[in-house]
Amino acid sequence: MTAYDDLMAFQRTTEALAEVAARTGWDQETVMPRGAAPQRAEEMAALEEVLHARRTDPRLGEWLEAAEAPDDVARANLREVRRTFERNRKVPARLAAELARVTSLAQGQWATARATQDAASFLPVLAEVLRLRREEGAALADGGDPYDALMQDYEPGGSAADMAAMFDAMRPRLVALRERALSGGPAPALSGRFPAAGQMALAAEVARAFGYDMQRGRLDLAVHPFSSGSGLDARITTRVDEEDPFNCLYSTIHEVGHAAYEQNVAAEHLLTPIGQGVSMGVHESQSRSYENQMGRSEAFCGWLFGRMRDTFGDIGVASEREFYRAANAVRPGYIRTEADEVQYNLHIMLRFDLERAMILGDLQVADLEAAWSDRFAADFGVAVDRPSNGFLQDVHWSVGLMGYFPTYSLGNLFAGGLMQAVRRDVPDLDAALRRGNPSPATDWLRDRLQRFGALRGPAETIEHATGHAPSPEPLLAYLETKFADLYP
Amino acid sequence: MTAYDDLMAFQRTTEALAEVAARTGWDQETVMPRGAAPQRAEEMAALEEVLHARRTDPRLGEWLEAAEAPDDVARANLREVRRTFERNRKVPARLAAELARVTSLAQGQWATARATQDAASFLPVLAEVLRLRREEGAALADGGDPYDALMQDYEPGGSAADMAAMFDAMRPRLVALRERALSGGPAPALSGRFPAAGQMALAAEVARAFGYDMQRGRLDLAVHPFSSGSGLDARITTRVDEEDPFNCLYSTIHEVGHAAYEQNVAAEHLLTPIGQGVSMGVHESQSRSYENQMGRSEAFCGWLFGRMRDTFGDIGVASEREFYRAANAVRPGYIRTEADEVQYNLHIMLRFDLERAMILGDLQVADLEAAWSDRFAADFGVAVDRPSNGFLQDVHWSVGLMGYFPTYSLGNLFAGGLMQAVRRDVPDLDAALRRGNPSPATDWLRDRLQRFGALRGPAETIEHATGHAPSPEPLLAYLETKFADLYP
Repeated sequence: MTAYDDLMAFQRTTEALAEVAARTGWDQETVMPRGAAPQRAEEMAALEEVLHARRTDPRLGEWLEAAEAPDDVARANLREVRRTFERNRKVPARLAAELARVTSLAQGQWATARATQDAASFLPVLAEVLRLRREEGAALADGGDPYDALMQDYEPGGSAADMAAMFDAMRPRLVALRERALSGGPAPALSGRFPAAGQMALAAEVARAFGYDMQRGRLDLAVHPFSSGSGLDARITTRVDEEDPFNCLYSTIHEVGHAAYEQNVAAEHLLTPIGQGVSMGVHESQSRSYENQMGRSEAFCGWLFGRMRDTFGDIGVASEREFYRAANAVRPGYIRTEADEVQYNLHIMLRFDLERAMILGDLQVADLEAAWSDRFAADFGVAVDRPSNGFLQDVHWSVGLMGYFPTYSLGNLFAGGLMQAVRRDVPDLDAALRRGNPSPATDWLRDRLQRFGALRGPAETIEHATGHAPSPEPLLAYLETKFADLYP
Repeated sequence: MTAYDDLMAFQRTTEALAEVAARTGWDQETVMPRGAAPQRAEEMAALEEVLHARRTDPRLGEWLEAAEAPDDVARANLREVRRTFERNRKVPARLAAELARVTSLAQGQWATARATQDAASFLPVLAEVLRLRREEGAALADGGDPYDALMQDYEPGGSAADMAAMFDAMRPRLVALRERALSGGPAPALSGRFPAAGQMALAAEVARAFGYDMQRGRLDLAVHPFSSGSGLDARITTRVDEEDPFNCLYSTIHEVGHAAYEQNVAAEHLLTPIGQGVSMGVHESQSRSYENQMGRSEAFCGWLFGRMRDTFGDIGVASEREFYRAANAVRPGYIRTEADEVQYNLHIMLRFDLERAMILGDLQVADLEAAWSDRFAADFGVAVDRPSNGFLQDVHWSVGLMGYFPTYSLGNLFAGGLMQAVRRDVPDLDAALRRGNPSPATDWLRDRLQRFGALRGPAETIEHATGHAPSPEPLLAYLETKFADLYP
C-alpha cells in the first residue's frame, strides 16, 4: 500500500459516511416524524463530529505529504482532499458540532415559522446560526474576507468581487429586459384543475425523459425541493401546488439536472473525492440547462403542452405558443423559486447583498426583515405582504448556507455558455425537444461534463466542455433573443 | 467532569450514531432505490467501522475503571457499556466491518431469492455470513460455546441449555394442544375483499389504540415487518396481503409492542446506554402481550370484528365468536409469522436446532434446505412446497441473526407471566378491550416495565414487574385454558 492508497481507502469510508449524512438529511425533510427533531439534531451533530474528526485526522496531513500522483485523477483526488483538510483543520470540532446541532434545530423552526407567518419566532435561532457562521468565516479567512472564505465551500475559487462584477454586467441588461416585459400586456396563464396525483405522475415521466434513473434515485415531496446524495443513490424532491402545476414540474426538472450530474459521474469515481459535482455553480449550470434552457424552450413546451392536456384536460391556454408564453411569463412576484429567467438573478442580487452585510457585521438579524422589505420594494416595486413571501421563503439561511446564493446566478451564467456549445454541436436539438426528448443535449452534458465529476476545477470544467472561458455574454444574448421574441 | 460524566458524554454520541445506523437500516428496507444496494453496503460498513471503533475505544476501559456509580441508574449504565465494550473488544474491526458489508448484501440477495424461489442463488452469500458469524462466535466464546456467546447479543444471561430446558417444558403440552386443535373440525376463516388502503387505515387506527405515538414514529410497508430506532424516532413496518387482513393487522400490533417499549422509556434515559429495551426476549414479551394476549383475546376480537365490518363490509364470518375463532385458528401452515400461538413455538424449536447445528459446524449450508424440509415434515406432517415457505421465509439468517430465534419463545414465556400479573391488577381489562381500549394494560406495562428501559437485567425486569421469577407455567396455563375453550 502506498501513501496514496492508504489515503484513498481512508477517504472512501469518509465519503460513505458523508452519503449517510446526506440520506439522514433527506430523511429529515421527507419522512421524519415531527417529534423526532430534538433527537435528530443530536444524531446530525454526532455524524458531523465523526466527519470532522476524519477530515482533520492528522494522518491525512502525512499521507498528503507522502502521496505521489501518477495521473490527473490522482492529482484531482489529492487536490480535493487537501482543500477539505486545510479548510476543516481551521474549524474547531466544537464549532463544527455546534453548527450541525443548531442548523438542524433552526431548519425545523424555520419550517414552523414559515407555515405560521411568525417571523419573530425564527430570529433568535437565526441569530445563533449567523453568530456561528461568522465565527467560522473568521476562522477560515485568516484575516481575509470572511464571506469569500465561506464561499469556498460552494464555489472553490469564487469571490465576492467576482460575483459583484458578474452582477454588474448582468444588472442593466436584465433590468431593461424586465421593464420591457412588464410594460407589455399580461402573459397568458394556466387555469383548470391540477390534482396532485396527476402532477406527480407527469413529474416522474418528465424526470425520466431528462434521463433521471429511478433505479438509483427517488422522487418525493418536501417543503423545499432539493437533491441529495450521489452515485447510486441520488434522490430528489419536489412540491405540489394544485393551482400551479409549473411549480412541481419545473422544480422536478431542476432537481433532475442536479441529480443527473451526480448519477452520471463515471462509476470508477464512486465514493472517491472527485466522485461528485465540482461546485454549486457548475451544479446549478446543469439544473438551469435542464429547467430553463431546455424545459422552458419553445420546442419542449410544445411537447409538454400536449402531455398537460392529456393529463389535466383543459388547462386554460389553447396553443403551444400560448403555453410557451405562460411558462415564461414575466410577472411581479415575491418568490425566487417561481421567478422567470429575467427576474431570477435580481432575487439573487438582493440575497447576496444582505447575506454579505450580515456576515460582515453590517446588518443585524433584528433588522433583516426590514432590510429585505426595503430592498424588495426598491428592486421589485412592491412591499412584501407576509414573511413567507419575504425572508422566510428560502431554507438556506436557516441551515447556515450564507455564501451559497450567488452560485445560482453563476450557474445561470455557466448554463448560457454550455447550451450555446450544445446548440453548436447538436443543431437539431429543437426537433428532439419537440418530441419530448432532451437526450441529445443530456448525453452531450454527460459526456462532456458530468462524467468527470470534480476532475477539474469549476471554470476549467466549463471551459473543457465548451471550448471557451465562462462569460456572462452567452446567457445575456440568449435571454435577450428569447424575451424579445416573447415580449415583442 | 468525572470519569462517569466523560464516559456518558462519549457514549451519547455513540448512541446517536447507533440511531443513525438504525434509520439507515430502515431506509434500506422501505424506501431505498434498488440500484443503491452496493453503495449502501459500503455505507453500512463505514458506520459499523465507526461504531466498532467507538465501542472498543481504549478510553472506555480507563473510564470504566475510574468511574464511580452513585446510584442504580449509573450502575446500570456502566453495566451496559462494560458488556458491549468487553464483547466488541474481542471482535476484530476487520471482521465487524466485513459482517456489516456482507449482511447488507446478503439481505438484498435473500429478498431476490425469496421473490424468485431461487434458493440456490442465496446459499453462497449465506455461507459467507455463516462463516463470519462462526468466526465471531469463536472470538466471543473464549473456548466456550460459540452459540451461547452469540446469544448474549440478544439475551444477556441466556444460554442454549436454558432454551432447551424451556422448549422441553413446552413441547409435550404444545404438541398435545396442537393435536387436539387439528383433530377438531376446520376453524372459520375470513373471506371478502380487503383492499390495501383499508387495511393500512385500520392498522394505523389499531396502532394508535395500542398507544403507538405517530408523532414519534411511522408506519410503512416492508417485505418483513420490523421495528427500528428508539426514543423520539421509533418506526414500524407491516405488510399487506389483500386476501388475509390478519397478516397486516397483527403484524402491526406486534411491532407496536416493540415500538411502544422504545417510545415509553423515560425521557431522562434518551440516548443513554439503558435508554432502550433490555433484551430481545423482554422486547418480544411486549409484542406478544400486545399481539396475542390482548390483540387475539375474545374481548378485543369483539371490538375488531365491528371495525372490520365497518371497513370492509361482509368479511365472511357472522359473529364475534366466529371472528375470535378465525383469529385464533390452528391450521397446518408453513409460515412462522402467520402461525397461531400453539404452533408458533414449534417453528422456533426447528430454527433453534438448525441454527445451533450450523454454528457448531454440525450442519452445512449446502444441506440446510434438506434439513429444514426433513424436520418440517417430521414436526408439521407436510413437505415444504417452495423455498419461500421454507428456509427463505425469514430475513434473520441473511443478516446474521443466529442465536436470535429462541428469544421469540422466551418472549412468549415472559408475556405469559406479565399478562397474568396485569389481569391480577386490572380485573376489568376485558371490559376495556371490548371497547377497543387496551390502555389499562399498556399503561401497566409502561409504568411497571417499559419506562425503566435496560435499568435491570432481563429476568430481573420481568420479576420487578410481576413479583415472580419467569417460568413457562403462566403461558402454558393461559394457552391450555384458551384453546380448550376454542377447541372443546
